[in-house]
Amino acid sequence: MIPSQKTGLMLFMHSKAGLCFFDSAQGNAMNSSSAHAASGPHAQSTETQNDTAAAWDLALGRTVLADIADPALTQALQVTLNNKTKPLGSLGRLEDAALKIGQILGSTAPALEQPQMLVFAGDHGLTARGISAFPSDVTWQMVENFLAGGAAVSVLSKQNGIALTVVDCGVKHDFLAGLPAGTTRVGLQVRKASGAEQGTADSSTQPAMTSAQRDQALQHGMELVKGLPGNALLLGEMGIGNTSAASMLLSRLGDLDIAVCTGAGTGLDAPAVQRKTEVLREVLALHAGATAPLDALAAFGGFEIATMVGAVLQAAHERRVIVVDGFIATSAIVVAHALQPLVLQRCVFAHRSGERGHEFMLQHLGVQALLDLGLRLGEGSGAALAWPLLQSACTILRDMASFASAGVSEKADDPVAVA
Amino acid sequence: MIPSQKTGLMLFMHSKAGLCFFDSAQGNAMNSSSAHAASGPHAQSTETQNDTAAAWDLALGRTVLADIADPALTQALQVTLNNKTKPLGSLGRLEDAALKIGQILGSTAPALEQPQMLVFAGDHGLTARGISAFPSDVTWQMVENFLAGGAAVSVLSKQNGIALTVVDCGVKHDFLAGLPAGTTRVGLQVRKASGAEQGTADSSTQPAMTSAQRDQALQHGMELVKGLPGNALLLGEMGIGNTSAASMLLSRLGDLDIAVCTGAGTGLDAPAVQRKTEVLREVLALHAGATAPLDALAAFGGFEIATMVGAVLQAAHERRVIVVDGFIATSAIVVAHALQPLVLQRCVFAHRSGERGHEFMLQHLGVQALLDLGLRLGEGSGAALAWPLLQSACTILRDMASFASAGVSEKADDPVAVA
Repeated sequence: MIPSQKTGLMLFMHSKAGLCFFDSAQGNAMNSSSAHAASGPHAQSTETQNDTAAAWDLALGRTVLADIADPALTQALQVTLNNKTKPLGSLGRLEDAALKIGQILGSTAPALEQPQMLVFAGDHGLTARGISAFPSDVTWQMVENFLAGGAAVSVLSKQNGIALTVVDCGVKHDFLAGLPAGTTRVGLQVRKASGAEQGTADSSTQPAMTSAQRDQALQHGMELVKGLPGNALLLGEMGIGNTSAASMLLSRLGDLDIAVCTGAGTGLDAPAVQRKTEVLREVLALHAGATAPLDALAAFGGFEIATMVGAVLQAAHERRVIVVDGFIATSAIVVAHALQPLVLQRCVFAHRSGERGHEFMLQHLGVQALLDLGLRLGEGSGAALAWPLLQSACTILRDMASFASAGVSEKADDPVAVA
Repeated sequence: MIPSQKTGLMLFMHSKAGLCFFDSAQGNAMNSSSAHAASGPHAQSTETQNDTAAAWDLALGRTVLADIADPALTQALQVTLNNKTKPLGSLGRLEDAALKIGQILGSTAPALEQPQMLVFAGDHGLTARGISAFPSDVTWQMVENFLAGGAAVSVLSKQNGIALTVVDCGVKHDFLAGLPAGTTRVGLQVRKASGAEQGTADSSTQPAMTSAQRDQALQHGMELVKGLPGNALLLGEMGIGNTSAASMLLSRLGDLDIAVCTGAGTGLDAPAVQRKTEVLREVLALHAGATAPLDALAAFGGFEIATMVGAVLQAAHERRVIVVDGFIATSAIVVAHALQPLVLQRCVFAHRSGERGHEFMLQHLGVQALLDLGLRLGEGSGAALAWPLLQSACTILRDMASFASAGVSEKADDPVAVA
């Protein structure tokens, strides 16, 4: 089956500006079965197969997301919550989370299963400009720490029963060095884009990645999620220098001055933040034409963010619950949202980060986060910390008694008049 | 051994104003062994034994709390946190919680064990004045719901591995009716004060409880905690009308106008909140002389709050981690803090409630809560929700790698100068 106007597909096609939208119809949402049918073009002639297949594979993850808003389900969820033995709305934003998860999973008794934390890692050429308090080597060192179980996200994931996989999207290190070809390491997926062995290029001199590299990273993200068990994806990341990329993505896609988007990252002092801001302002000026989401992504990087965008689009397509961590993870959502606004229907925001720009990202997306603990570590640590609250939200829907089942009196229509 | 000036005991002795402080020395903290030795007077002559024994038992729980501040331990905890593989302070208030729990349990590798949720329940005579949206019967109905496992605190405790016990401190209901004498029910402790079978008296006409009833409730709370396993006490409560008692305790002990202390409780509308405020203003005026903490407790009630105060003092004495829920639980801390300011050294505040006065209670105590989810359910639901975060705080201290152990580079003293 060749996608046609009738299928309502909105495809990304290669163009000189990189990938762009091809709106084949009126942008109607397509359902999951027609999306899968759209992979048919793999059977085309060998000569055009590679390019076309790549385009279709990208399209598969980025067909217009179905609108999963379901007023009848929303009402059923609200009625279920209202009948639980508690004052109306008294579980506050936990009830909002319950509504959200119920919508994503399409059930008034949702069950989160086999949560998967993907920690996307990559290095940034821009670190040559002194925009981070830590040296670049910390990226690969921390990946080893994740694999050894010693990092925050390692211990928090273990505590909360979350499977953790680190993805090398473009770390300046060979994690398989010295191992026989074909060897794999437990908990590690190596998915470097071609030419990403040294991380991204220095975005103060050229785009952080080529459009081909960006597309490959997006594709890697999609493929990673396709193979995952469970129904929830938690987003983590590691990459010295990546608060800079995230700040620039926010500035460009959120139309905000870079000064309000730039923070201390892993711990710069005020003068260093000021220098970082000046560097980022230069980089933004160099790539003034990169205003489309995917162009901005290529210009500013990084590989871990691009791979995360692909993963998010695929997870959204599959109606997984996407648990968004802090500043970097949310920057991937900013890009994905610019491409597919309905991605937000599938996202739960774990926490409001202490990193300066995060509040503005959340405002830009019009969303509120669950935790507000001044976290600014990244890795997925905030997503792991919020996970038990999401389980609680489901538990409320599934296991609490209703007024009727428990034989508890409901609120008096009119409380006893004051004597 | 008879306590003397030398022991530095600060005892509560019966007086016409109820219990009052007897500062036997300079208010020096005593250690736990001398506190236990103070129970010796049980061996006195039969004639005075009962009163005296009661006084000593109360004293046992309310000897001046030891100051557990330990600068060397604080520093060791801070160094431990700072050496973990993460930017300095990047786990935000989770690190504060780690410091706190480490201090309480006296360890740089604290382990929370066998958490115990006590849900203190009682009824309030003041409900006759129409100060609640729900009828009084909901108190006992919800206790049955707790026992059946259907309430929010039931399912959240189960999710998080927290043992739950409901304490009937003065519910207008006989939970053992029709059962053979001596029968107990799993998960229920009946510890009614004498004459508490109908809940408290109507505080708009007389004190909610007599000083003898209050002392008995305090004693019950202490005894309950003495028998508990583990090292953490989570505070829950149930009692239609108890936001009124908590509001009055805050107003009196925090010296705030009742209007800023009064909220919607289980769901009053604005005119009903206004009527509730007027009733509470009357009650406060009636008991204008009840300014001492224990006098205020007797005047405004309730039995569940008084029992909780006793439990808190005993738990503080035993250096348990006290996890404080919302508005009602914090009102018990306000009373305990007025008696023994050092009780705060042992408290972790789970969440900031949506109930109006809670923010002012937290301000009065000078503390900050972990969660801010707009919860206003009570029961201990917020404490149960925060529990995984406290476990995470310990996990950070115990299981994360240090920079040295993981071979991760530390922050550069001076990041590469901007080119």
